[in-house]
Amino acid sequence: MTGSIDVVALAGALITQESVTPARGGVFDVLEAAIVPLGFAVDRFVVGEAPDGPVENLLAVRGSGGPHLAFAGHLDVVPPGAGWTGDPFVAEVRGDLLYGRGAVDMKGAIAAFVAACATAPDSGTISLIVTGDEEGPAIHGTRALIDRMAARGIRPDMCLVGEPTSTTRLGDMVKIGRRGSVNIWIDVPGRQGHVAYPHLADNPIPRLVAILAEIDAIALDQGNAWFQPSNIEVTDLDVGNPATNVIPAHARARLSIRFNDEQSGEALVARIRAVVDRHAPGAGVRGIVSGEAFLTPPGDLSALVSGAITHVTGLTPELSTTGGTSDARFLSAVCPTVEFGLVNATMHKLDEAVATADLHALTAIYAEVIARAIRR
Amino acid sequence: MTGSIDVVALAGALITQESVTPARGGVFDVLEAAIVPLGFAVDRFVVGEAPDGPVENLLAVRGSGGPHLAFAGHLDVVPPGAGWTGDPFVAEVRGDLLYGRGAVDMKGAIAAFVAACATAPDSGTISLIVTGDEEGPAIHGTRALIDRMAARGIRPDMCLVGEPTSTTRLGDMVKIGRRGSVNIWIDVPGRQGHVAYPHLADNPIPRLVAILAEIDAIALDQGNAWFQPSNIEVTDLDVGNPATNVIPAHARARLSIRFNDEQSGEALVARIRAVVDRHAPGAGVRGIVSGEAFLTPPGDLSALVSGAITHVTGLTPELSTTGGTSDARFLSAVCPTVEFGLVNATMHKLDEAVATADLHALTAIYAEVIARAIRR
Ligand SMILES: [Zn+2]
Ligand SMILES: [Zn+2]
Repeated sequence: MTGSIDVVALAGALITQESVTPARGGVFDVLEAAIVPLGFAVDRFVVGEAPDGPVENLLAVRGSGGPHLAFAGHLDVVPPGAGWTGDPFVAEVRGDLLYGRGAVDMKGAIAAFVAACATAPDSGTISLIVTGDEEGPAIHGTRALIDRMAARGIRPDMCLVGEPTSTTRLGDMVKIGRRGSVNIWIDVPGRQGHVAYPHLADNPIPRLVAILAEIDAIALDQGNAWFQPSNIEVTDLDVGNPATNVIPAHARARLSIRFNDEQSGEALVARIRAVVDRHAPGAGVRGIVSGEAFLTPPGDLSALVSGAITHVTGLTPELSTTGGTSDARFLSAVCPTVEFGLVNATMHKLDEAVATADLHALTAIYAEVIARAIRR
Repeated sequence: MTGSIDVVALAGALITQESVTPARGGVFDVLEAAIVPLGFAVDRFVVGEAPDGPVENLLAVRGSGGPHLAFAGHLDVVPPGAGWTGDPFVAEVRGDLLYGRGAVDMKGAIAAFVAACATAPDSGTISLIVTGDEEGPAIHGTRALIDRMAARGIRPDMCLVGEPTSTTRLGDMVKIGRRGSVNIWIDVPGRQGHVAYPHLADNPIPRLVAILAEIDAIALDQGNAWFQPSNIEVTDLDVGNPATNVIPAHARARLSIRFNDEQSGEALVARIRAVVDRHAPGAGVRGIVSGEAFLTPPGDLSALVSGAITHVTGLTPELSTTGGTSDARFLSAVCPTVEFGLVNATMHKLDEAVATADLHALTAIYAEVIARAIRR
């Protein structure tokens, strides 16, 4: 026990430090100023160069020995966009809500965890893994923090990521995994010509259509106990031919595949390449894997977090793997990792806001998680 | 016999009157000045408004009674484009060639026919049907001339269109028909959404792919003695979605169908609409028929023109229906119509040029056509 922290005030102080991704500087100063009095040893470092950086990261550790609970999150935010009622970078309480970019994703959760630490028992180890680049390319963010931890011999036993996982009520959902994501670009070349003389040209569109028809018929898997079926969407077609009487020289498509732990990104790219090669030898296929799927199977950690949520809210959270990617995909390679945080209804939107009551409740839940984790 | 005209000089005088489509004015003055001394009664009129007009048309008649031979052509030209060796609107003889926009398509042929008239016997009727809009939308061109002819009771027995039909040597090809042409735009609507939540969205691309796969499998016909098989080309695909994680709201395609006399434009649009409706009820289908197919079956007129060509060049021309559309599609509804003119290798290209020897030979061929036609 080291005293108490006003979670709404700390969330507001973090919001008021503008930190569109990639972030560094002021917003980290506010966090450091809050945790040093709580006994954390703070390690801040900046990595990367434009356009993916520079990115600031913060690694803070309190205590020694096990059990070791890590809390991970990010202080960067997505751009506010135009049309806010107030200033997105001036935190403001109106009625029951605290407004500002990052209120739920995820400065509010970081403030709640820090406030929870202020009342936590002095046993085991607590670490904070906080990056300034989760919303951007995420090249120099959590990956660099994990390298830093490895170099310093910091090995948490479990990790809680504070992303906003709740959907309609605080505590209704915990994420125990995420699907993977890969984008694939297909470029089928042909030979340009006049539609009146098709034998002198080579239209690439029928080959692309045949490729996409075969891809549309693929069922990658049936899903499993913890994941939906993997899914392929064709997200773009592009020929760019303004001339009605011209057979075009290229036909392009783009796929987005969200996949479960029965697939891997590289294998999916290879599978699509095989389809393309069968219809259009020599066509271009380029895949970018933005994250592999991961799962922390239900067990001690999810039971611990669920128990803490039920203790405070009375709700039994759903254990889910839905939604987009998060940095938990990197941390799950280090130790069992689950995600739990605020209600995500306004994340990335205009007038992002969090109920001040939820900030207090989340603080209580995180305190209960810490108590259950480091006392074991 | 009314004297002789220098075909190269007249072609040069027409070229030097800039007449990018739609055309009127000076280039028609040059033509009128050349044919009035030959005994033609000239009727010039301007129709239409921007952007499809105004367009000038010229109808000239010499003689009365049958047989009645009409010669049809256009004085407008396509834009020159950048990169000519000389000025595209200053006719210039360099070596064996006369250079200038319109040299082969088709001021040279008009000059040749006028020069042929200067030496023609004074019997039967010769008419000239010359428009300033064949290369443009062709709304106010030959169609307006045909209306004018009907209103004035002018009914040719046969029509020769002076388009550049020769491919490698003057006289190697006569066109006795043309394929029809229709463009069709398909717009499949869907519901936009995030790729991570496909059940909340409705991707239109798989439906468009299914439509195009079915269209690609269609064999419209096998062609016939005078026509190649009708052919469908998909000429464009357009989704325009820059976001890799977004399912798009629309997927669009454009078709170009070149079809023979076993098909009709409207029936083809209806057939495509039926395919689209089966896969995507409510999708948009818009067709624009730019010309129906036509055929003047081999007979007296083609034999007459072929005979004249063989008489002058020794070649036996191929009777063909290949290539794009021409105004012959309108004239063939009035009377038997064939097309014959210069070598089309440089038409619509930079440094368009005609061999001066070909201008003289074409004059001789046209003179032979006139002699055989109006003496019968
Ligand atoms: Zn976040
Ligand atoms: Zn022409």
